[in-house]
Amino acid sequence: MTIKQIALVGMLLCGVCLGQSGSVRPTTNIPDAEFPRINRDLSATFRIQADQAHKVQVLMEFGQSTFDMDKSEDGYWSVTTTPLLPGFHYYAISVDGFPANDPGSRVFFAARREVSGLEVPGADSDFFAITDVPHGTLRREWYVSKTTGETRRIFVYTPPGYDQSGLRYPVLYLQHGYGEDEAGWADQGHENFILDNLIAAHRAKPMIIVNENGQPGPSFQPPPPPQAGSKPPPVGQVARYFMNERYETFDRVISGDLISFIDTNFRTVADREHRAIAGLSMGGAQALRIGLHHLDRFAYIGAFSPAIDITDATKDYDGGLANPTRLNQRLRLLWIGIGSDDFLFAPVKESHATLEKAGIRHVWVESSGAHVWTVWRRYLADFAPRLFQ
Amino acid sequence: MTIKQIALVGMLLCGVCLGQSGSVRPTTNIPDAEFPRINRDLSATFRIQADQAHKVQVLMEFGQSTFDMDKSEDGYWSVTTTPLLPGFHYYAISVDGFPANDPGSRVFFAARREVSGLEVPGADSDFFAITDVPHGTLRREWYVSKTTGETRRIFVYTPPGYDQSGLRYPVLYLQHGYGEDEAGWADQGHENFILDNLIAAHRAKPMIIVNENGQPGPSFQPPPPPQAGSKPPPVGQVARYFMNERYETFDRVISGDLISFIDTNFRTVADREHRAIAGLSMGGAQALRIGLHHLDRFAYIGAFSPAIDITDATKDYDGGLANPTRLNQRLRLLWIGIGSDDFLFAPVKESHATLEKAGIRHVWVESSGAHVWTVWRRYLADFAPRLFQ
Repeated sequence: MTIKQIALVGMLLCGVCLGQSGSVRPTTNIPDAEFPRINRDLSATFRIQADQAHKVQVLMEFGQSTFDMDKSEDGYWSVTTTPLLPGFHYYAISVDGFPANDPGSRVFFAARREVSGLEVPGADSDFFAITDVPHGTLRREWYVSKTTGETRRIFVYTPPGYDQSGLRYPVLYLQHGYGEDEAGWADQGHENFILDNLIAAHRAKPMIIVNENGQPGPSFQPPPPPQAGSKPPPVGQVARYFMNERYETFDRVISGDLISFIDTNFRTVADREHRAIAGLSMGGAQALRIGLHHLDRFAYIGAFSPAIDITDATKDYDGGLANPTRLNQRLRLLWIGIGSDDFLFAPVKESHATLEKAGIRHVWVESSGAHVWTVWRRYLADFAPRLFQ
Repeated sequence: MTIKQIALVGMLLCGVCLGQSGSVRPTTNIPDAEFPRINRDLSATFRIQADQAHKVQVLMEFGQSTFDMDKSEDGYWSVTTTPLLPGFHYYAISVDGFPANDPGSRVFFAARREVSGLEVPGADSDFFAITDVPHGTLRREWYVSKTTGETRRIFVYTPPGYDQSGLRYPVLYLQHGYGEDEAGWADQGHENFILDNLIAAHRAKPMIIVNENGQPGPSFQPPPPPQAGSKPPPVGQVARYFMNERYETFDRVISGDLISFIDTNFRTVADREHRAIAGLSMGGAQALRIGLHHLDRFAYIGAFSPAIDITDATKDYDGGLANPTRLNQRLRLLWIGIGSDDFLFAPVKESHATLEKAGIRHVWVESSGAHVWTVWRRYLADFAPRLFQ
């Protein structure tokens, strides 16, 4: 479908969301902020006061598309974009070349900075909406990691009824991508509302979700972006870089420190059959690494749009994939998904083919969509119901 | 003391914080961001890439002081400020007149937008630091308010050991100021670390803290700022405006919906002797109103730099102060504090005098400092140990 067709379907199915006035304030707006607004055709209208600026633009998705704003006599700049895909978008207001936040929108931590977010409503947004169902809790917890010597912050989702039930629950360790942090799955991902809704519909088992920061210690840098005019590096090279980053510190944080903290301080079922690990992009590469290295700890692995390029099942992941028979016996689920518009599509599809050829059983999801939270929310909604059944 | 003297004392007492290199990255920096930096004299150095901009400035505290940045040949702008007071500062980078966030710093919700924050280290910062003590939990919870018909988000601090102890705890309802929201006491205030540290030192009783959004429904606007060149309105007029805003919806949210939710879902001691309400600025005016109107619910009231101007104890707060004998019998604590550099100093001091004259017993704290989080953190550390003893 083209963007226009998707917008049309969204409008038909979701007339209420767009109200009668023809445009709505997205849920990502600051309370009372009149702009940005989403119009009936899912275009967005931005409006900014910057009367001393010479050139003001909207940069969608870190500049993947750009819209020049026009200045009116009152010093406000405004523009209406072409129709946008329903779902979550990052954007910036470029003021004379400086990428600024829109004062009308909430920000989200991405690409190692605080970035304005825009939630374009659509037909496929009920599953992560705040609906009239029992709600779980999103907790910030602090624990001491022996590995790093730090007091580290984590997010923990406990399902509805956790405080009163006295029951024990399985645990999903769920990781963000490069440039994000432990708040991503709560703030951008709405993991809690996705699970609240799935649990209320009896589609997923009540579970605990834990989010850590996947880059403990000094951050590594990804391969440098290509110089203007030069050829970009092959995508597989980027994917292999992330897949082969050792993540040893993070592995020890999870396997040595965090699991023990969670099992001590929460009512968990503390065995591999009730423990899953998943992540998106860099976090997908990490989930595979940590999961494959600790089959005694995890029976479920999920890789959402993962930064991987598995070309040799006998060698990649330090031999973690070298014994398909054992893997098929031990893993209750290996889930891999990628969107057709994702820049990582080719290496992930190649990884899938490598696993197929090696006879490693896995669920393969080839969806629409790019390398965006809109897709990862859907992946969580597909993955979570398959856990702990 | 002058700022330079405070900086000197801070350096002497806090040599470690500033490291050997002569400057440090404040805790408010994005991980790995080299700028901004705090220097030995507590000045801050900012550095920004904006090679197409014509004029770039640092605006401290919403423009209370301004520092022009200088452009170097590599397109970076930089400036070192005069020494800053230790504590938490809001700031913006003005790019050709547009107040933008600094990509190097975390943002905080204030003045109805996301604003860059800068934590200047000092001798008086241990009490809200992440230290090696047992840590409580900061929970985001969602509950249905009958008053507003919404599913509303709140923050709840549960003290160390809450999950395991089986004990019941007293509750402090603690509110933010105008233009902030329910995350303020967690993000800017570090309420959780302040209480963790007080509880570990046996200086405060373990307690639950609840933060709501003090402006349910459409926000009201404060009096318009004065036109350039015209006289600003008397401060007492601004304070009276906030004091007399009805806050009826918020009163019903707290007294009708929230207390019931908290007492049902958390292990509380559900009586007035184990319930306190406090707030800062607008939240201080609200705490007084709600506390005085519901003496059957609250035995402790705290007003931190409150937006109040009590001039007639027989009439103000709808007669809530008209019976000093009853108030003195019922209230276990009425706490009012204001900083000598606060723009609300005069009306709050007048309110104190009015209460004194009426014979209404209260703790009066006249501190140093302005209308800033640095002061409110200290107020919480003074107020909390007096509760539930």
